Amino acid sequence: MNVLVWNENRHEKTNPVVAENYPKGIHGAIAEFLQEDEINVKTATLDEADHGLTDEVLAETDVLVWWGHKAHGEVRDEIVEKVQKRVLEGMGLVVLHSGHFSKIFKKLMGTTCDLKWREADEKERLWVVDPTHPIAEGLGQYIELEKEEMYGEHFDIPTPDELIFISWFEGGEVFRSGCTYKRGKGKIFYFRPGHETYKTYYNPEIQRVIKNGVNWAKPTNSATPVYGNAQPLEKISEKANV
Amino acid sequence: MNVLVWNENRHEKTNPVVAENYPKGIHGAIAEFLQEDEINVKTATLDEADHGLTDEVLAETDVLVWWGHKAHGEVRDEIVEKVQKRVLEGMGLVVLHSGHFSKIFKKLMGTTCDLKWREADEKERLWVVDPTHPIAEGLGQYIELEKEEMYGEHFDIPTPDELIFISWFEGGEVFRSGCTYKRGKGKIFYFRPGHETYKTYYNPEIQRVIKNGVNWAKPTNSATPVYGNAQPLEKISEKANV
Amino acid sequence: MNVLVWNENRHEKTNPVVAENYPKGIHGAIAEFLQEDEINVKTATLDEADHGLTDEVLAETDVLVWWGHKAHGEVRDEIVEKVQKRVLEGMGLVVLHSGHFSKIFKKLMGTTCDLKWREADEKERLWVVDPTHPIAEGLGQYIELEKEEMYGEHFDIPTPDELIFISWFEGGEVFRSGCTYKRGKGKIFYFRPGHETYKTYYNPEIQRVIKNGVNWAKPTNSATPVYGNAQPLEKISEKANV
Amino acid sequence: MNVLVWNENRHEKTNPVVAENYPKGIHGAIAEFLQEDEINVKTATLDEADHGLTDEVLAETDVLVWWGHKAHGEVRDEIVEKVQKRVLEGMGLVVLHSGHFSKIFKKLMGTTCDLKWREADEKERLWVVDPTHPIAEGLGQYIELEKEEMYGEHFDIPTPDELIFISWFEGGEVFRSGCTYKRGKGKIFYFRPGHETYKTYYNPEIQRVIKNGVNWAKPTNSATPVYGNAQPLEKISEKANV
Repeated sequence: MNVLVWNENRHEKTNPVVAENYPKGIHGAIAEFLQEDEINVKTATLDEADHGLTDEVLAETDVLVWWGHKAHGEVRDEIVEKVQKRVLEGMGLVVLHSGHFSKIFKKLMGTTCDLKWREADEKERLWVVDPTHPIAEGLGQYIELEKEEMYGEHFDIPTPDELIFISWFEGGEVFRSGCTYKRGKGKIFYFRPGHETYKTYYNPEIQRVIKNGVNWAKPTNSATPVYGNAQPLEKISEKANV
Repeated sequence: MNVLVWNENRHEKTNPVVAENYPKGIHGAIAEFLQEDEINVKTATLDEADHGLTDEVLAETDVLVWWGHKAHGEVRDEIVEKVQKRVLEGMGLVVLHSGHFSKIFKKLMGTTCDLKWREADEKERLWVVDPTHPIAEGLGQYIELEKEEMYGEHFDIPTPDELIFISWFEGGEVFRSGCTYKRGKGKIFYFRPGHETYKTYYNPEIQRVIKNGVNWAKPTNSATPVYGNAQPLEKISEKANV
Repeated sequence: MNVLVWNENRHEKTNPVVAENYPKGIHGAIAEFLQEDEINVKTATLDEADHGLTDEVLAETDVLVWWGHKAHGEVRDEIVEKVQKRVLEGMGLVVLHSGHFSKIFKKLMGTTCDLKWREADEKERLWVVDPTHPIAEGLGQYIELEKEEMYGEHFDIPTPDELIFISWFEGGEVFRSGCTYKRGKGKIFYFRPGHETYKTYYNPEIQRVIKNGVNWAKPTNSATPVYGNAQPLEKISEKANV
Repeated sequence: MNVLVWNENRHEKTNPVVAENYPKGIHGAIAEFLQEDEINVKTATLDEADHGLTDEVLAETDVLVWWGHKAHGEVRDEIVEKVQKRVLEGMGLVVLHSGHFSKIFKKLMGTTCDLKWREADEKERLWVVDPTHPIAEGLGQYIELEKEEMYGEHFDIPTPDELIFISWFEGGEVFRSGCTYKRGKGKIFYFRPGHETYKTYYNPEIQRVIKNGVNWAKPTNSATPVYGNAQPLEKISEKANV
């Protein structure tokens, strides 16, 4: 399996807290733990040519992990369209945290993907509400994060195909924190945690969820549907003209 | 309730069969039967200024019915964005037949909305698979149409929130013919039948489904969610810096 | 519309706090506010003959509201089967609070319907996560209850067809508090709040949800499906014996 | 992975056509192809002690495959309850064909699971409507069976969590032929084909679906939820008595 971890990689360059949290970038930290699972992992970032998302790179990517935040608008529309096309062809997509507002996620959802937010060092507890799901493999009843950014409902997304986590926040909100979708032949997993000013992606349970999500999102080798004008498979009767 | 029936209204002008089927246009035929239900119905067509979809018209529309086919590309993008915004604000949307390929439907779905098709005067039987649904009110076990265009799976749509009808076609295909979705505060109903060369919209059962769909899609008067930075509702504890 | 409010009516007889909260019984309080909506409301309780759920009563009931807690086991199995049969025929069912453990709800769900609970006078905030739903009509972004019993995840239910409310609890848990299901021709709404030691059913927003739920759950007048051996609707070809 | 293939094994003893189709029983045929995948497969049949479903056997079973038809009523209720308990604990369940009317499937669904049927040597074409699903791995756009028993809608089941196949039948019906459900910690896959008088279970594509289904249904090693009275995870404030 080939996984590509895409990161905006801007906070890391301007905010010393983030730079200290993630000296190899958020993408570097995610790539590192994914590699433990004998997955072939590459990374790409916004400031590379074509954001590192060339046709060749996309063509060989099985699952794309996406982290972006303050520069969503700089991702070029034609690149977003190529990513969408690849998802519809079967490439998995794991969207993390502020990626809810990325062009690619909004395009695949058809909604604003808006939400409430607050940066207040508050406690988050992600409850597993679907213990049957392979993305919950190896987890306890909940994951507790001492400090995170809050995301609160209403989260303006389509009804998730599956809802795996619901977050409780100290300040009084809840959030649908782990949601899956199907689009075309592709599978999508949105996972909430991972604000850049915290070391969330070093948390072993969070790493486990992302590993599980990547595995779940891998392409299914089923027939690519044929579209357009189709010959009948059965004889069609002649009918009177009325 | 204010309903707006939008029609491309092109086939009616160039194809004598369609002109004969629908002397007042497809929009006229649909408006006519909707009016029986004490609904306030207006119509709009592609060739009007702003396609008849001005801000004022959209603002006062509760449910928009959409029929388009060969001129999807002529619908201006900024109008499509306004319609999407209104759906997310709560306006209902009933998408008919070849409207599956309209810009507005594809934008709200995030997929290609592609499918198989065939024009062969073939029999369609729409089976009710959700008899609990208000859109099935007043129907029998199935609706039979002697001649229709075929639409076949795979239909490249997100998993429907609700699946109400599945079509059987004489030539050997099946199709998810009645699907509901939620996007933002808006409700969407896609309904398959209605090829322009047949008199499908005069069929009383088809009319009943569209009436039911319009009623089901009407806006819910719930609170409009507030998005963005949010003050805590509960006290957040001080935490040690780690 | 004929609504029947069923209540176990035992706490009211033994616990002075409950007796004071609900001098006419929980069923009496619920019937009272439902009657404001020109709904024809009757009540029934466990200790009546056949628990007040005779064939005649069930036959004329459009929506049944159910509250039970400490005497679930005393509800006779053959009555539960009759109620299930009526739901499958189209009668709506609104299950409140501790009704999650009623025989009828467990029978319709196929799971244990188990959960976490705690009686600790704690704050509950029910967030609306589906503002399109008619059950959210007239509500704000959330409902706040100063003191309620806590119910926490994991809630052992099938995936809800629709999830309308998610509760936040002061003690750190979340809960899927408003869930809809379809079974046969019947619609089911589970709504969490309503512990007997609090005056929850006098809260106007809670009343609004229950009114909305009763309206949503009313029977759909669609064809009753025909089951069993069926004649072909189309000619079946002769095939060679292999 | 330990798979147990359960079969009623009655038609094989009394109907020479079935005996010829399945000389080792339907269970034998299914076990044979499952073993190709390095799965540890055992079988059990109705007439064994405890129907071959002892506590020990169930405890070590990861996925149970179920075929039954004319003797559903002979499966003892206490055994059905044990199987249900194991599914809720996480054991996968693959229900085949006439197993739709088995006690275990009806108990887990909460509905009648009734349908239309006809034995008329008719053609069935199962269309893949969810090409993202691992159960569709390795399949084409559809599976064609020259002769099968017809099952037609309405199929009285809860809304499937996922719908993978829709069948077209020569005689004019459609059917939701591949459905998944979650109950407790267990995953359930219902798959329609497999009437005893045809050699359906020797069809390589049907075998592929059942293999995929068994793999998909395997238990998830997530935390077993804790139910009942729960200590608070956060401090609960003192509140005034009102």
